[in-house]
Amino acid sequence: MKLFEPLDIGGTLIRNRIMVPAMVTRLSGEDGFVNQDITNRYVRYAQGGAGLIVIEAMAVHHAKAGPLLRISDDRFIPGLAGLAQCIHDTSDSKVVPQIIHFMKVSKSGWRQTIDMLSNAEIDRIVEEFGDAVARAREAKFDGAELHSAHAYTLASFLSRTNPRKDEYGGETLEGRLRLISRIFENIRRKVGKDFPVGVRFLADEFIKDGYTVNDAKLIGLRLAQLGAAYLSLSVGGKFEDAIHLPGQVPYPYTGYSGDRCMPGDWYPAVPHAHFSAEIKAFVKAHGFNTPVATAGKISDPDDAERLLSTGAVDIIGIARGLLADPDWPHKVRQNERERIVKCDYCNVCKHLDGAHMKVVCALWPQGALQAPPDDRQSPAPGWDTTGANLTVSASDGKAVLKWNKATGAARYDVCRTDPLGKVEVMDAVKVTRWEDHNLLAGMPYCYQIRAFGAAGQGGASSNMVTVRLPVLDSEIVRFF
Amino acid sequence: MKLFEPLDIGGTLIRNRIMVPAMVTRLSGEDGFVNQDITNRYVRYAQGGAGLIVIEAMAVHHAKAGPLLRISDDRFIPGLAGLAQCIHDTSDSKVVPQIIHFMKVSKSGWRQTIDMLSNAEIDRIVEEFGDAVARAREAKFDGAELHSAHAYTLASFLSRTNPRKDEYGGETLEGRLRLISRIFENIRRKVGKDFPVGVRFLADEFIKDGYTVNDAKLIGLRLAQLGAAYLSLSVGGKFEDAIHLPGQVPYPYTGYSGDRCMPGDWYPAVPHAHFSAEIKAFVKAHGFNTPVATAGKISDPDDAERLLSTGAVDIIGIARGLLADPDWPHKVRQNERERIVKCDYCNVCKHLDGAHMKVVCALWPQGALQAPPDDRQSPAPGWDTTGANLTVSASDGKAVLKWNKATGAARYDVCRTDPLGKVEVMDAVKVTRWEDHNLLAGMPYCYQIRAFGAAGQGGASSNMVTVRLPVLDSEIVRFF
Repeated sequence: MKLFEPLDIGGTLIRNRIMVPAMVTRLSGEDGFVNQDITNRYVRYAQGGAGLIVIEAMAVHHAKAGPLLRISDDRFIPGLAGLAQCIHDTSDSKVVPQIIHFMKVSKSGWRQTIDMLSNAEIDRIVEEFGDAVARAREAKFDGAELHSAHAYTLASFLSRTNPRKDEYGGETLEGRLRLISRIFENIRRKVGKDFPVGVRFLADEFIKDGYTVNDAKLIGLRLAQLGAAYLSLSVGGKFEDAIHLPGQVPYPYTGYSGDRCMPGDWYPAVPHAHFSAEIKAFVKAHGFNTPVATAGKISDPDDAERLLSTGAVDIIGIARGLLADPDWPHKVRQNERERIVKCDYCNVCKHLDGAHMKVVCALWPQGALQAPPDDRQSPAPGWDTTGANLTVSASDGKAVLKWNKATGAARYDVCRTDPLGKVEVMDAVKVTRWEDHNLLAGMPYCYQIRAFGAAGQGGASSNMVTVRLPVLDSEIVRFF
Repeated sequence: MKLFEPLDIGGTLIRNRIMVPAMVTRLSGEDGFVNQDITNRYVRYAQGGAGLIVIEAMAVHHAKAGPLLRISDDRFIPGLAGLAQCIHDTSDSKVVPQIIHFMKVSKSGWRQTIDMLSNAEIDRIVEEFGDAVARAREAKFDGAELHSAHAYTLASFLSRTNPRKDEYGGETLEGRLRLISRIFENIRRKVGKDFPVGVRFLADEFIKDGYTVNDAKLIGLRLAQLGAAYLSLSVGGKFEDAIHLPGQVPYPYTGYSGDRCMPGDWYPAVPHAHFSAEIKAFVKAHGFNTPVATAGKISDPDDAERLLSTGAVDIIGIARGLLADPDWPHKVRQNERERIVKCDYCNVCKHLDGAHMKVVCALWPQGALQAPPDDRQSPAPGWDTTGANLTVSASDGKAVLKWNKATGAARYDVCRTDPLGKVEVMDAVKVTRWEDHNLLAGMPYCYQIRAFGAAGQGGASSNMVTVRLPVLDSEIVRFF
């Protein structure tokens, strides 16, 4: 599989094309130092075999924030070096920190915007990013990633809504690109050209008047010209459409752009990779082979492989899917796809982040702070002699499924066969009840439940049941 | 070309695949009666040769609104019949009215939502739609189109944000589909099965928690089952993200979903047709050959032809492009593409609607209420002996173009050749100055201006000029 071919990113070789994109964990203390919980989280990804692990955003500056890693001072280097060391000791996964600058936000809903920054403050940001990358190198990371996506400072400069009237905005693309260009130049001066520095930025802002892939192609080209080790694309996640809840700091993933950034279960799979493909094609047409990473509701290995084998992108970012199961890479490589703990895009992880709580996966065992080990000894779950006894009833426009508990089950996958014979895993649940609200009356849908153990070991499948919702108004059925 | 092949829609043959989607004109009086201006607008489309003309939304009920056509009472039939007659007398374009029910909105920003409707009120809506279609038939329209898109009543029932707890919502797809299903059943009872009734609905709501193409596929299938003559897809245009300006009635095209509904010049071309293609493929896989129409920033004939010849869709909706030039169909058919007055997606038309002003195209001659006639006699515009004298200067991250006035010019197209040699019409302007804010420093861009007459007759091209923006920081250029 192309998925397991190595790739050179700015002089560093990653062993496969699977990337853990930066995901906030809320596991650090407010002091910003690396701790054991964070170390365990990232070591777990290294055990699972991801080619590139991007450590959650760490601040290049000292601004107040909740639990957030820091790289804003030399005193953070030993902790970061320890983290990098632990990951390197675990496997040959490469690891880079995502480094971030953000503006102030307050519980009143007020937020500092980039037009409030003086030129001296901008100069300081340039220095802060350069110093942070130098620290990342000193801590023996394999590179660094500039966070120029979502709601944060660098993305706000790149934004089509950049309100500055001076040479850092001025309604021109070049103005919007000036800060990131200066930052790159300063990084090169401070740490040289041989330390890989990737950039994460938005393929589409998904806000009113925001930029589209048209601008993203030009931004990507400029970053390639500047020598970016890779381009990692995300979308949305802006403050502009955030919903402010009284007494809470605005959270940039609450609006529509937040829906797009972490598309939930009602979105189709792989909704954004075509943007990355367009950007890659554009950059390549201009003579740059800068690797391009995509992300967003990708977890089917076939989808990932298709994106790589067609040359659409070079690296597959899997955030929620790898949170659910860090062993995804090993399981795919060893042809054990059935053992993958499949993310159901319930977004409990996102909501935990929004509530400033420790980010875990709802599919992990209750109370677990990390994904369970890849246990190959425990028996697969199964139903006892009474069987699964899956039943379905149809009423009020929905189908209600119920089944028996299986011994040793950590979760149940709900599989549905639609009227055309297409089989789909609709959801993954811990309880023994599930409702289907998205079916058409008068047509047959077939369901089956499968029980899984905590490490993904697949157990027995239930009996199959079929349901056909009654047509609400008898007159309508005549026209079917 | 497939574009000019006829198509059967529910028993009516349209002569080609070009559709004028419903576009508000604000030309009617507040009385809701057809007048001469409206008649002229639609006769102009018939002259141009569109296969199917959808008359702007007319209300099925008596609720107060600004200038808006009505089909809510038999007294409107003579006027509507006259309009249909005028169109049929002009050409063999087919014509259907779009019929709409909307909820109340107030200048305070308050708006009535569908959870405020009693069951008796819902029953009345069912009757109103049935009666309106009967009137459309009596007025000798070729069919009717239910407006189940954007911010209006039917779309609010279909919405994933439908707040009703009863059988018209209840968080189930079947609940959301119940009203439109009842309406179809009632229409069939009132006007029979042989009068074509199409439906316009959303392929994607583009609002927080809104539905995506996943639901749209099922909605499309249900509408096909109900016997819809065609499915016409739009996106966005919701009240949920509308920006309320003090003292003004909310306008559902002011938010992000409004950006998507009528994508402006910063959007890529044809940003939404892939949704229509997915919906068509799904409906077809279930055994229905219901024609599917798409729309949204399509105006290049090659784009339109590709969508048809690949079987992605069956009908090409062109709204702003046909407003700018109703003769687009004839000009494409006669291989006179260069004479098309090309929409530049400036969205002045949209802003006029938002301001409740008569909707015209900014590319029409100053003060014109209709597109100019397809004048083939007037000479093409040209520069006098001093020439165009196109000049370009580069500063502050932008290129500024200036040129001389051409005799008889109604507009100038600005053509840009990018560093890869790709030629693009960047804008169409009436003035002799244009700024390019979207280019990368250090790379060569080449410009040429072409003057056009009011009916699209192409005149002389200017000299060509090339510009290369200086790189802002001399240090950066080293890394290019």
